[in-house]
Amino acid sequence: MEFRTTSRKDNHIVLSVKEDVSSRTSPWFEYLRFVHQSILETSLSDVDISASFLGHAVEAPIVISGMTGGTDLAKAINESLARLAQKFKIPIGVGSQRAALEDRSLARTFSVVRENAPDVPVIANIGQSQVAAGVSREEILYLVEMIQADAIAVHINPLQEVLQPEGEPDFRDFVRKLGEFVKESPVPVIIKQTGEGLSRESASKLRGIGIEGIDVGGAGGTSFAVIEGLRSRFYGRDLLEKVASTFADWGVPTAASILEVREIFPDKLLIATGGIRSGVDAAKALRLGADFAGIARPILKELYEGGLSRAEKYLEQVIKELRVTLFLTGSSNLNELRSAPIVI
Amino acid sequence: MEFRTTSRKDNHIVLSVKEDVSSRTSPWFEYLRFVHQSILETSLSDVDISASFLGHAVEAPIVISGMTGGTDLAKAINESLARLAQKFKIPIGVGSQRAALEDRSLARTFSVVRENAPDVPVIANIGQSQVAAGVSREEILYLVEMIQADAIAVHINPLQEVLQPEGEPDFRDFVRKLGEFVKESPVPVIIKQTGEGLSRESASKLRGIGIEGIDVGGAGGTSFAVIEGLRSRFYGRDLLEKVASTFADWGVPTAASILEVREIFPDKLLIATGGIRSGVDAAKALRLGADFAGIARPILKELYEGGLSRAEKYLEQVIKELRVTLFLTGSSNLNELRSAPIVI
Amino acid sequence: MEFRTTSRKDNHIVLSVKEDVSSRTSPWFEYLRFVHQSILETSLSDVDISASFLGHAVEAPIVISGMTGGTDLAKAINESLARLAQKFKIPIGVGSQRAALEDRSLARTFSVVRENAPDVPVIANIGQSQVAAGVSREEILYLVEMIQADAIAVHINPLQEVLQPEGEPDFRDFVRKLGEFVKESPVPVIIKQTGEGLSRESASKLRGIGIEGIDVGGAGGTSFAVIEGLRSRFYGRDLLEKVASTFADWGVPTAASILEVREIFPDKLLIATGGIRSGVDAAKALRLGADFAGIARPILKELYEGGLSRAEKYLEQVIKELRVTLFLTGSSNLNELRSAPIVI
Amino acid sequence: MEFRTTSRKDNHIVLSVKEDVSSRTSPWFEYLRFVHQSILETSLSDVDISASFLGHAVEAPIVISGMTGGTDLAKAINESLARLAQKFKIPIGVGSQRAALEDRSLARTFSVVRENAPDVPVIANIGQSQVAAGVSREEILYLVEMIQADAIAVHINPLQEVLQPEGEPDFRDFVRKLGEFVKESPVPVIIKQTGEGLSRESASKLRGIGIEGIDVGGAGGTSFAVIEGLRSRFYGRDLLEKVASTFADWGVPTAASILEVREIFPDKLLIATGGIRSGVDAAKALRLGADFAGIARPILKELYEGGLSRAEKYLEQVIKELRVTLFLTGSSNLNELRSAPIVI
Ligand SMILES: Cc1cc2nc3c(=O)[nH]c(=O)nc-3n(C[C@H](O)[C@H](O)[C@H](O)COP(=O)(O)O)c2cc1C
Ligand SMILES: Cc1cc2nc3c(=O)[nH]c(=O)nc-3n(C[C@H](O)[C@H](O)[C@H](O)COP(=O)(O)O)c2cc1C
Ligand SMILES: Cc1cc2nc3c(=O)[nH]c(=O)nc-3n(C[C@H](O)[C@H](O)[C@H](O)COP(=O)(O)O)c2cc1C
Ligand SMILES: Cc1cc2nc3c(=O)[nH]c(=O)nc-3n(C[C@H](O)[C@H](O)[C@H](O)COP(=O)(O)O)c2cc1C
Repeated sequence: MEFRTTSRKDNHIVLSVKEDVSSRTSPWFEYLRFVHQSILETSLSDVDISASFLGHAVEAPIVISGMTGGTDLAKAINESLARLAQKFKIPIGVGSQRAALEDRSLARTFSVVRENAPDVPVIANIGQSQVAAGVSREEILYLVEMIQADAIAVHINPLQEVLQPEGEPDFRDFVRKLGEFVKESPVPVIIKQTGEGLSRESASKLRGIGIEGIDVGGAGGTSFAVIEGLRSRFYGRDLLEKVASTFADWGVPTAASILEVREIFPDKLLIATGGIRSGVDAAKALRLGADFAGIARPILKELYEGGLSRAEKYLEQVIKELRVTLFLTGSSNLNELRSAPIVI
Repeated sequence: MEFRTTSRKDNHIVLSVKEDVSSRTSPWFEYLRFVHQSILETSLSDVDISASFLGHAVEAPIVISGMTGGTDLAKAINESLARLAQKFKIPIGVGSQRAALEDRSLARTFSVVRENAPDVPVIANIGQSQVAAGVSREEILYLVEMIQADAIAVHINPLQEVLQPEGEPDFRDFVRKLGEFVKESPVPVIIKQTGEGLSRESASKLRGIGIEGIDVGGAGGTSFAVIEGLRSRFYGRDLLEKVASTFADWGVPTAASILEVREIFPDKLLIATGGIRSGVDAAKALRLGADFAGIARPILKELYEGGLSRAEKYLEQVIKELRVTLFLTGSSNLNELRSAPIVI
Repeated sequence: MEFRTTSRKDNHIVLSVKEDVSSRTSPWFEYLRFVHQSILETSLSDVDISASFLGHAVEAPIVISGMTGGTDLAKAINESLARLAQKFKIPIGVGSQRAALEDRSLARTFSVVRENAPDVPVIANIGQSQVAAGVSREEILYLVEMIQADAIAVHINPLQEVLQPEGEPDFRDFVRKLGEFVKESPVPVIIKQTGEGLSRESASKLRGIGIEGIDVGGAGGTSFAVIEGLRSRFYGRDLLEKVASTFADWGVPTAASILEVREIFPDKLLIATGGIRSGVDAAKALRLGADFAGIARPILKELYEGGLSRAEKYLEQVIKELRVTLFLTGSSNLNELRSAPIVI
Repeated sequence: MEFRTTSRKDNHIVLSVKEDVSSRTSPWFEYLRFVHQSILETSLSDVDISASFLGHAVEAPIVISGMTGGTDLAKAINESLARLAQKFKIPIGVGSQRAALEDRSLARTFSVVRENAPDVPVIANIGQSQVAAGVSREEILYLVEMIQADAIAVHINPLQEVLQPEGEPDFRDFVRKLGEFVKESPVPVIIKQTGEGLSRESASKLRGIGIEGIDVGGAGGTSFAVIEGLRSRFYGRDLLEKVASTFADWGVPTAASILEVREIFPDKLLIATGGIRSGVDAAKALRLGADFAGIARPILKELYEGGLSRAEKYLEQVIKELRVTLFLTGSSNLNELRSAPIVI
């Protein structure tokens, strides 16, 4: 079992890097244009993009989204991602820690993140199926302590569960179990869909159980339907391959999901992951109501293909673009960006 | 005459399999998106897609649409299709039984369906021209008994009649004749357009004459204009080839036709055939108001190219996709699917 | 001068046949779809498409639009076109008769039309520039008698005048001169734009001066901007070539022009020429308010490339498609077609 | 420093001529169509397109937009452009005169314009950064006298400042400084954005400080994001290259910018530059509210590739197309064009 879990993690990384695993839908950011402002009275160097992540001060509203852990490759990747987070002073997540629950010797593939990112918020990660199956208080503490996490994300992806031969598409009693999980957790809990977005209806079901953050994980970026389809193709699982292909455009696009979730949770931490590719995309996500924009696959790809320095350049670019977007819309800080004129 | 009828049947099969005979319009399902639901509290295995076909319980709201009969090839195909219907416990139709009326020795090419599908609804089939020309009570009984049919479909396709050199585009008195046909029929009668859809106006003309079901047979899937165009090309009938090409996008797209017909017949059995290619398409047809989604050509193609096992895999895929669509929209059964949130 | 006029005529013919001289805009017929009717109670053979052209009974609402005259090639073409008109019992126009005014020996290149089409309406043709320059009563009679015309078309194309080096873009006093022309003409006068359409405003200026018909000559079919552009290219007239290319999408598309002109002239003969390619296009033009649909270039092309028999097949096809469109919309005649349901 | 400034000028010219440096957005002129008028009562030769530029009579509402100066190549180009302006009797601008402020020996690369265009309005040019940094009264007089300017344009392009390594994206106190500049200037001041357009909000900030003209410089034509991106690529400045590419479609398209600025400044001189390619584009800009249409890169390209004679032909073409547009919309002069019917 642990072998399966860990090798699958490597599969995900390699496929994400080598194939086009994006959703067949777009995140819908193209429907939004900022209005350029020519007559400015500020200096680019005055633009302030610092933000607060669940009470922790960070230097940009960008999250390195959790991707991996559990294998040697994953450890090396996590170490690099952590260095980036530390360098840019931005929050970072780890991939699902399930493997480390099953085999505690794998904990070091995750703890490497905290070691290399001592000064930024780190987000633990566990899957919906584990929560639905029940995680003990001791296990939650173990997950959090492993990386001295500031928050823990429960990732949900019912479509992926359906498409994995080893998937467990059984979520009976999930919301109640999630409520218990929240009560047991020593740190704030974030609900994180990965690639198909949260709708208004789904968000409503989360009200009143004490979660502190939502990552909309919208459609338009990395698609696990596409990834699982490629894995099924490789293993000759024809049926799952075809079903995956049918659902490759499924989900609520990120831009739409931000609007729907913000309506339900006006005050909670809202992270927008899924198809954020540039600082202009990030600015659009923030303009629509997100507090942070999360990025996963592009960073992984730069890292894998060009090493730490290229991944660093990429993040530098995103952050510069975000600053320039604030500048050119006449916004001095993130608060002003939220009311910058746009065209839809 | 019987030779013409039977060889034409084989033409249709071979062309449908080897050429792209789809309408130049789409079924318009792309204008509809389901809203993904992340926060589920059910299990995929609890999703119930069983349905009732004119009082007969079946395991999925999918119909294997009538395609053939009358030749040896047709017999072999019908036998396989029947096994599929029996396996999945879903209704099945036969192709036009006109040939068997003309030459009763051909009855076995149709009866093979009932022999191999003893436990599911089987739908007899006869053309509008025959009904317009008058079918005797004895003939109707013969058609029904041949396959112990649970219903009989009268297929209509005025465009095809126009495009066949052997066509009979003369429908004077058709509605009255259809009324008589309904009265004589020992089983429920279904009106079935094949590929150009039923409009609101046409559906209205069917009110009050006792039909029990409508198959909208919308534009966007197999197009007999395209098929007849290819036949005309082959036989050098230039005029008909060109006219066929002009009308290759003619008709009411399936999605539109479902809405129009459901408005006129709120309570009758409504089958949506024409361009259903996946379980998501089928779910969309049901969401718009259909009771069943019918599929013809894709099954034929899988069967012809990959044998029974591949056709079986295809149907398995469609049914799985339909189940997954219910699951991911938070619908436990077909009734709940009918009010699942959608985006247009 | 006469040499220039006649050789230009041959240029036009050859370019129209060998190059793609269609407007860079479409006639907008694609925005209109007829609603297919499945439940019919008529026979195709009962569909009646006979029409009346300024009081003359004809067998279809199709006009062979005036194209040529003045050269030997033109004479041969006119003879064939006339035979087609006579065969299908439909109206036919001749090309501009200006050349025959300048050199009366060229009259036979036009009169060949009446000789070969004794039983159908024949339309004489003269340009706006001649009318603006003043045509004497004697000249008008000469034009009409040359072909025993039932009507005379005054073609207008200010854009073409601009683009021809020999053009005369001077229309001062045109409307008054046209009024005089109408008074002098022994037969009804038709105003005919060729390829850029008549707008509501332009149509309004024609009110009250006694014209009996309008050919909207909309954008979307043969474009004289494109034709003149090709001629300028050939002769190295760079400036005119470029200007022509800028205006290659200029004009009111045929479908729009029909609606605008019908609003101003609810009762006059309205011919829709420009981009009619099939009987379905013709039906759409009639549905929008035209009395006749005119076709020019496609007939010329079939004739040039495939001789009389292929041009005949083409017209047969258009007429068949028109009949089928009436049939499949449940219209028994052109009057009923005018209220057939459509989707925009 | 002066070296950097002048060589950069040559870079801009060469890149503009050899690469596709247009914005990845369009100027949105394609959303507007003029309505063709067939029934005209004027002559093309009567169409009057003369205009007034800040009180100076000119023969067409076309401006040769300021592009260059400061190098030998620039001097040669400026000389040719000036001859064109003189020939067509239209206003002409020079490129940024900053280099000549830094090194007065470069003045002759600008003064060549006035020498060759004695009878038309000439527009001086200085950048926003210089104004923000403060330009003395003596310097302003120097700029104006250098070319005996009739007006002076202050060009603004915060995006370009961001994308140039040598850029100065610091505009604190700019509006106040601009106000002082206006007071000191002996000639009217024009604010000129170059390629990203002026929005309603930015235009509002300019109210009440005494500027006499606005050049909207909208997105859809030459893009300095694209040009600077190419320069960064050449010099291996990866980060700036990528940021430039992200912003290559940034800005308010010219057509939109005209509407927004005209709303704020109903009576000031409004020049529309950015993506004007033909006389029809120019006519559309005027129809939307501009007084003049400015053209830069196409003239430069014709000049560079085909010499003075080809550039002259191009301007002849644009002016002819503008005249023809007036003619075919039934407008005798620019005033009538402003209420010509259009379709959006
Ligand atoms: C290789 C890979 C592995 C991932 N694994 C996890 C995971 O274990 N837990 C999780 O919450 N999200 C996981 N994600 C999802 C990302 O956090 C993110 O939500 C998603 O990739 C969309 O962002 P993107 O379009 O920027 O890639 C993974 C993504 C990738 C590319
Ligand atoms: C080869 C072939 C033969 C068909 N023959 C008949 C027929 O005899 N009677 C009938 O009602 N429909 C017939 N159909 C129409 C189908 O039942 C169905 O309505 C149509 O193909 C649209 O569905 P599809 O797009 O899934 O193919 C035939 C279809 C095919 C492909
Ligand atoms: C070669 C050629 C010559 C034409 N000459 C004339 C003409 O002399 N007078 C006239 O009124 N229209 C003339 N026309 C215009 C046609 O009558 C018709 O209005 C136009 O071609 C648009 O129809 P289409 O798109 O079917 O070609 C000519 C068209 C062509 C192709
Ligand atoms: C090579 C080049 C250099 C330019 N330099 C200047 C300049 O120095 N000052 C200025 O105000 N605009 C400058 N511009 C901008 C043009 O004046 C004009 O606003 C812009 O190119 C958009 O017009 P277009 O799309 O017709 O090229 C320059 C343009 C080009 C192509």
